[in-house]
Formats: sequence, C-alpha cells, structure tokens
Amino acid sequence: MRILILGGDGYLGWPTAMALAAEGHEVLTIDNYLRRLLAERTRSQALMRNPDLQERAEIFAAAGGPKIRVAIGDCANYLFLSRVVAEFQPEAAIHYAEQPSAPYSMIGFDEARLTLNNNLNTTFNLIWAVLERAPDCHIVKLGTMGEYGTPKIDIEEGWIEIEHAGRKDKFLFPRQAGSLYHTTKVLDTDLLWFYVRSSGLRVTDLMQGPVYGLSTAETDLDKRLMPNFHYDDIFGTVVNRFLVQAIAGIPLTVYGKGGQTRGYLNLRDTLQCVRLAIQNPVKRGELRILNQFTETLSVNDIALRVRAAAARLDLEVRVDHVANPRKEAEDHYYNPKNSGLLELGLKPSLMTEDVLTAMLRELVPYRHEIDLKKVRPRVSWSGGAR
Amino acid sequence: MRILILGGDGYLGWPTAMALAAEGHEVLTIDNYLRRLLAERTRSQALMRNPDLQERAEIFAAAGGPKIRVAIGDCANYLFLSRVVAEFQPEAAIHYAEQPSAPYSMIGFDEARLTLNNNLNTTFNLIWAVLERAPDCHIVKLGTMGEYGTPKIDIEEGWIEIEHAGRKDKFLFPRQAGSLYHTTKVLDTDLLWFYVRSSGLRVTDLMQGPVYGLSTAETDLDKRLMPNFHYDDIFGTVVNRFLVQAIAGIPLTVYGKGGQTRGYLNLRDTLQCVRLAIQNPVKRGELRILNQFTETLSVNDIALRVRAAAARLDLEVRVDHVANPRKEAEDHYYNPKNSGLLELGLKPSLMTEDVLTAMLRELVPYRHEIDLKKVRPRVSWSGGAR
Repeated sequence: MRILILGGDGYLGWPTAMALAAEGHEVLTIDNYLRRLLAERTRSQALMRNPDLQERAEIFAAAGGPKIRVAIGDCANYLFLSRVVAEFQPEAAIHYAEQPSAPYSMIGFDEARLTLNNNLNTTFNLIWAVLERAPDCHIVKLGTMGEYGTPKIDIEEGWIEIEHAGRKDKFLFPRQAGSLYHTTKVLDTDLLWFYVRSSGLRVTDLMQGPVYGLSTAETDLDKRLMPNFHYDDIFGTVVNRFLVQAIAGIPLTVYGKGGQTRGYLNLRDTLQCVRLAIQNPVKRGELRILNQFTETLSVNDIALRVRAAAARLDLEVRVDHVANPRKEAEDHYYNPKNSGLLELGLKPSLMTEDVLTAMLRELVPYRHEIDLKKVRPRVSWSGGAR
Repeated sequence: MRILILGGDGYLGWPTAMALAAEGHEVLTIDNYLRRLLAERTRSQALMRNPDLQERAEIFAAAGGPKIRVAIGDCANYLFLSRVVAEFQPEAAIHYAEQPSAPYSMIGFDEARLTLNNNLNTTFNLIWAVLERAPDCHIVKLGTMGEYGTPKIDIEEGWIEIEHAGRKDKFLFPRQAGSLYHTTKVLDTDLLWFYVRSSGLRVTDLMQGPVYGLSTAETDLDKRLMPNFHYDDIFGTVVNRFLVQAIAGIPLTVYGKGGQTRGYLNLRDTLQCVRLAIQNPVKRGELRILNQFTETLSVNDIALRVRAAAARLDLEVRVDHVANPRKEAEDHYYNPKNSGLLELGLKPSLMTEDVLTAMLRELVPYRHEIDLKKVRPRVSWSGGAR
C-alpha cells in the first residue's frame, strides 16, 4: 500500500514510517522540523541527538531496512502538500503533522496562535489535497483522548446516543479539552466530520492517550534510529519524564494531588493501532473514531510503578508533589471505553515493572546528557510565564 | 458604555452601531470591507450603493445622530486589534467580523480557507486582545442557529444535561453544521468556551437565525443609512431574496422540497437582542448561550407569506422548486428553544403580512437595480462550481 506520513520526523511519525516500510508498504514521509525548532526555542531538546529525517532514512536503509522516501516541506502550505499527494497517490495518509505540546500552546499569544493555525491548516490542507487529488485515500488522523476532558459520565468511542425529552439522536461524544493544543484537536474533529458528511471523505480518528517508550523492533537495528525522546515539561510525556528523573536521581514531579487519570499506551502499541486502522479502512463518507490506549492510570500510579522499577536497579526514587501549573481536576471520575481497537486485534503490552525496568536500562547510558533545568514545570496555565 | 463593534460595516454591524450610539453609548466600529470585496468578486453586490463606513458615520451625524467612531483595519491582524482594544478600553465588544456566507464558503479551496482563517483568527485575536488589554470586557459573539444543524431532538439553548449509564453531566449542546461557514462558528464556540474556562473571559454567544429586514429607526433618518441589502444566492438571506424576486416579477427559488425549517428574526429584533445582551452582562468565567430567533418557519411557509403580501400590491408571485444546491434535510424535525432572550425582555416583531408588505413597498423604488443573474443558485455543495 502507498502510505503518506505527515509529521514523519516526530516521536510517533518516525517509528511508524519504519514499521510500515518494514511490512512492505511504500512509505513517503513529510516533515518541516517544526517540532525541532520549537524544542530549541523553548530549550526542550530531546535526550539523544536525532539525525535529520533524510539521514534517518539512509541509516535505516544501511541497516537493511527498506527505502523510506522523504519530502521536506510544510503541510500548512497547500501548494506543497497537494503536489505531494497528487504525485504519490497515497492509499492511506497518517496525519501526525501538528504542534503536539499542551504546555507550548499555553505559553502566550504567539505560541497559541502558531498552534491554532498550524494544526488547523495542516488538517484543512490534508482534507482538500485528498478531496482534490486522491479522493479514495483513507485519512488516519491522530486525535487525543484529551479532547473529551474528564466528564462525569463514561467516555464512549467518539459517539453517543442522546435521549432527550422523549426523542433520540446520535452525536459526536461531547468534547471539552484542557489546553489550547487539545482544543485544536477538537476543532480538527469538527472539520473532518463536516467534510466526511459533505464530501464523502474516509477518516479514522484515533483518540490517543499519552504514549511512553523509546524503542521498537526497528530502532533495535541501530541506536540512531530511536525516536526523539523528550523528557522535559513541554514536549515530554509524563512517563518518559519520570523515568529520566529516576535515572537522574531527582524527585519525580507529580503535579498537584496526582489523581489525574488518563489512558496510556506503549509506543509499540501505537504502531499496532495505526497498522490496524490502515488494514481495516472505512468506506467513503464514514468517520470512525477509536479510543487508543491500553490502560488507565493516575499520575500517582505511574510514580509508584516507576519507583518500583527503579528499585530493581538500586535507584532510589522520591516523589515530589509540586504546585500544578495546569488547570485540571486532580481527583475525578474517568471511565473511557477502548474496545474498538481490541476488536480489530490489538494485543496490548501494559506498563509493567518489566517494561519500565527495560526502559530505565536503555536510558542509563544517557544519564550524563540529562539537563535538570528541563524537567521542572516552566509553563503555567494561569499566566504562561516561562 | 464604551462599545466596540467588530464588523461595523456589515448588514447587522452598521444598524447596531447606529442603534447603540442613539442610546447614548460611545461606539467605535471596525471593518476592513472584506464582505464588500467578496461580494464584488462573486458578483453579489448589494441592491443599493452603500457609502463607506466613514461616510455613513458622517451622514448619520449630519442627520442629527451622535458621533460614531470608525477604525478601518483587519481584526485578523493582532497588532491592529490589540492596539484598538488597548486605546478604546471597551466595556463590551460585539463580534460580527466574520465571512458570513455559507455558499461562499462552499465555492472551493480558496474560499473555504479564507473563511476558516478569517473567522478563527478574528475570534482568536479578540479573545487575546481582551485578555491582554481589557480583561473585564464582555464579548458578545454572533454565533448561528446553524451550528446545531437539524437534530432529531429538541434544541436547547447552548447546553444539555446528558444522562448516560446511570451518571449525569452538563455539556455544550451537540453541534453539527451544514456548511463550512457554519462549521467555523462551531469552532469559534469551542475556542471561546476553552478560554472562558481557562482564563475567565466573559462571553455571550448569540445563536442567531437568518435575519430579514432593511430598515430600522435610524435608517429612517436618511435612506443612505440603510444596511447593505444583499438579495443574491451567496450573501442574501432567503426572505430578502424572495422579496426581491417578488418585486422583479420572477419566481421565488425554493431549494428542493422547501420543508427546511429555521428560526427567523427581524433586523429590528437583532438590535433588541444585542442591546439586551449588553445590558445584562455575564460574570467572569461564564459563557452564556442564547438562541436568537423569534419564530420558526419553513421555506415554503415564507414563500406563501411573501406571495400573500405581494398580492396586496397586485404583484403576482410564482414559486419554483429548484434543485437544492445544498446538502440538507428538506423535511425534518425542528424544535429549538428560545426563552432566554424573551426572559431578558425581547418583544418580537413577527414576519406578518404587514411587515412583508412594508418591506416590499420600501423595495419597489429599487426595482430597476435588480440584477436577475444574482438570484439563481450558483454554488453547489457537491461541486462548488460557479
């Protein structure tokens, strides 16, 4: 299958490109290195130096992997994106090309506006490039579980039937996100759903929880193929940050009470989920929404698991409850459904002590690269001060 | 009160500016003439020539009206808007500064992208200009009843309590719009609601139905003060278009079966509603949503009323059911609530034969200005062909 990956240089984009190429698909990746630029600007560089995308593709090929094509350019530029889509004629397009950090989107006006315009315009351009140039292409869009927020009712997979005053209808499940970044994903969903209805687009929206992990079957070929591993407060996800704190011998920074519960998944499971979505495309005029996580955990649960895993390596871990820089419930009901991907065949690998211990072992060699300034919260939801 | 009107040159913006100035408020209007430009480009010019905004303000003052201040500039330009907000320190900001045409937004990529970026960025910039420069200012945002679409359940005013699997929570009423233009208003609502929650903005979102009318108390001072009256298929609303067709002696163009039902209101009632919203501001951190219409009517109902009114002037009216260029239900359940504005004191003036006959009389002198090319549907939802 011809698969286009937007945001192919990202934490998820690059491992996805390798995994799908390894399965025999023809893969073309696009990136403009926006995340690298914003990480530099905010002093949130990844733990290891990552070769550029073309170099990564060369290293992968040299290690025996199949060819991955690379196009450097901005998906928010329609001329560029529509030309790539017209020439490549993708059968599936995986859309990761968004500014992915909630704290970044809350720094101030410039960062919020960049997030809004980049994320909306990449999605909008992909919609139109597909409609105009490859209308049968299946769009696989990465959404986020954060679109739903933390409602007091069970979270269904994308849709809900509402009974009201004796009548019934089916709607998108209500969305109410906790950051501007997450809100742009809500807007993406609204846009995609409109064009699915009006123009017969084929879309799978993967509502993903926070991802952890730093290796996949393909990164094992050569360490330089590892994804960009951010451990900071802006581009790092919580599990990755905690593991680095454990290695560095500094306290884990739990925001507030730590009862914040989310659905998590391993990087290797993200690859499975995306593969399953592509192998099971939807028909024209259908928006399928799948909740993409394997288990729900509170921040406190994660801190305890990281501590237990670290103890196996004789690392002593303290947990610090720091003032929560975000506006969010710290103790709340959370019951999201996730049967859709399991029914498609997902085999979860859970966040066990074994898994966390293996990650810690992989991180130990990079201990001297850790910059402690990066792991304390620097962005506040109430002020955006840096 | 110091009141800022974004989009003060518009069909609603200009009458609003005069009405609020006449009540003694200090009014500053902003416009960049985007709608005039797009009307020219699509050959959808208004029926009467409208003086520019500065000239309108001069004519109004010469006719004995109070001073209306004018700033020409683009609200999608943050430097411009934030400077105006900082200097004027508005206590209320009425936001009409959006590309307002559903058909325009469905012509093609360029028109859709302009609509998305203009509408989202004006709203986003207003949010930030208020947060940074006048955080106590009450934003009165014009939304649209079209955000809700035509669900099979009763439409509440903005919010709904959902009971699901034995638990309850309150959410934004589900939105599912029928054009890209209407979808941008859904995105506006999502954005406003996020910043209300995260930053304590004060917002009233007026979910308005299609407006009809061409005069107000202030336009009676001088004919040149009339709002820009569009009767075409792109910028004209259905009632205004039907009245012009009646005057021109050509059939009324009902799209499809004509069972499409919406909530309508008179231009004079829009002014009442906006005034009531401003007189009753919400507190910080509150998003109030009011459904702004006075009666629900099908397109067929309106055609019959226009025919009856025209008969009084000895105008014979035929009704043509033309192929529906839109994708919409032509026969559907529709039961929207609108008690909020009535409770605040709205006194509706309904679409009676008297009201329609009066409008016809006002239009007769412009009969020779009518361009018949403008009233047939030129934009199709399924192809966007012009």
